[in-house]
Amino acid sequence: MQVLIVHAHPEPQSFSTSLAQTAMSTLTENGHDVALSDLYQMSWNPTASAADFQDRADSNYMNYALEQRHNWNANTLSDDITREVNKLLAADLVILNFPLYWFSTPAIMKGWIDRVLISGVVYGGKRIYEKAGLTGKRALITCTLGGRQDMFGADAIHGSLHDLLKHLIQGTLGYAGMTVLEPFFGFHVPYISDTERQQILEDYGARLNGIMNEDGLSMPDLSRFDSTFRPLSR
Amino acid sequence: MQVLIVHAHPEPQSFSTSLAQTAMSTLTENGHDVALSDLYQMSWNPTASAADFQDRADSNYMNYALEQRHNWNANTLSDDITREVNKLLAADLVILNFPLYWFSTPAIMKGWIDRVLISGVVYGGKRIYEKAGLTGKRALITCTLGGRQDMFGADAIHGSLHDLLKHLIQGTLGYAGMTVLEPFFGFHVPYISDTERQQILEDYGARLNGIMNEDGLSMPDLSRFDSTFRPLSR
Repeated sequence: MQVLIVHAHPEPQSFSTSLAQTAMSTLTENGHDVALSDLYQMSWNPTASAADFQDRADSNYMNYALEQRHNWNANTLSDDITREVNKLLAADLVILNFPLYWFSTPAIMKGWIDRVLISGVVYGGKRIYEKAGLTGKRALITCTLGGRQDMFGADAIHGSLHDLLKHLIQGTLGYAGMTVLEPFFGFHVPYISDTERQQILEDYGARLNGIMNEDGLSMPDLSRFDSTFRPLSR
Repeated sequence: MQVLIVHAHPEPQSFSTSLAQTAMSTLTENGHDVALSDLYQMSWNPTASAADFQDRADSNYMNYALEQRHNWNANTLSDDITREVNKLLAADLVILNFPLYWFSTPAIMKGWIDRVLISGVVYGGKRIYEKAGLTGKRALITCTLGGRQDMFGADAIHGSLHDLLKHLIQGTLGYAGMTVLEPFFGFHVPYISDTERQQILEDYGARLNGIMNEDGLSMPDLSRFDSTFRPLSR
């Protein structure tokens, strides 16, 4: 299988980087082809703008999604985006590997999502969730955070971590059609011992050995809605 | 009152820009002082990195939050960040004005959040929610989206839009101590008539006339947790 790891951490010696390296070595040992997009190392540009398009469907008013479609079809998307779209389309498993910043990805990774998950190919009009463009691909969120595991859950201070990540789990990866796996979290990372961090890496490697056989999280069921996404019965 | 509008849209003629202009004129007419951070116009750098720090607490390993604290105290944060932190700290009301990209802010605005909501000043250690640094300030999310209003809600295709924005409403603005107001949404914007869009601007202006008297959304109640954020009783 083809794997794409999209990694973003501003400190090259970070534990997040160790997780990315564990994924690369474990998945390679399992016979998969692994590609890495290390966004900081690539100096990835996060900002969606008119500069992303070498041609324009409408030169007077820029609708970003419409220009994504037009420029993909005309092969005039900026080269940095085209390279990443091709890596994404080749992948059977995509791992987003990052430290949690404000209960989401760092901006540099949000800019990979904004610019690479292009309208027309990844989603568009009525092509969302199970009808979207990335069906058949698996997605794994691997993220580190300072908070403790017991700070999350129904009765915990922050509530459910899955709920805080709904924009990413459902609203991005699921919306794009991917089979979204249970995220892998490294909790309390700056405050634990080296031995505990080593255990997280071992747990992650063991998890990755079976990653191609896991079931995905549940997503909105299009069969309950009509073709305009209104509920079939109330 | 002091108002800061943080605006991000790659098309200067966008309806999102019209909403920012409506806010500027309405709030100015109401006697408030309004500052604008137009992130695209400013060519705002979204990427949190070592370049944000003119000094280092630890030159061998960069912990971004620790360096934010150290550099704020030493007055050595990069100038672009310092300017925005000072605008944020002067504001009684902060409006985040943006088009919804993947159920969150565009990356350029995520980078404003990542780099400007600095550890030590905005939050830190046990200073979260009602004990965080931005208590007493109001926050309003004003966002445009392509989706229809009936696509959101308990039985709707995407579920609750508030749930999809929980990372921003609770996990960012609430976490930082702000009084988070009910968001203002412009639904289905690319597909409606000019008359309908004009009505949204009028509704927004009317809403803003009373914005300083609104109650905030509910946030986690620290009194239910001990000093380490564990529940007081189970």
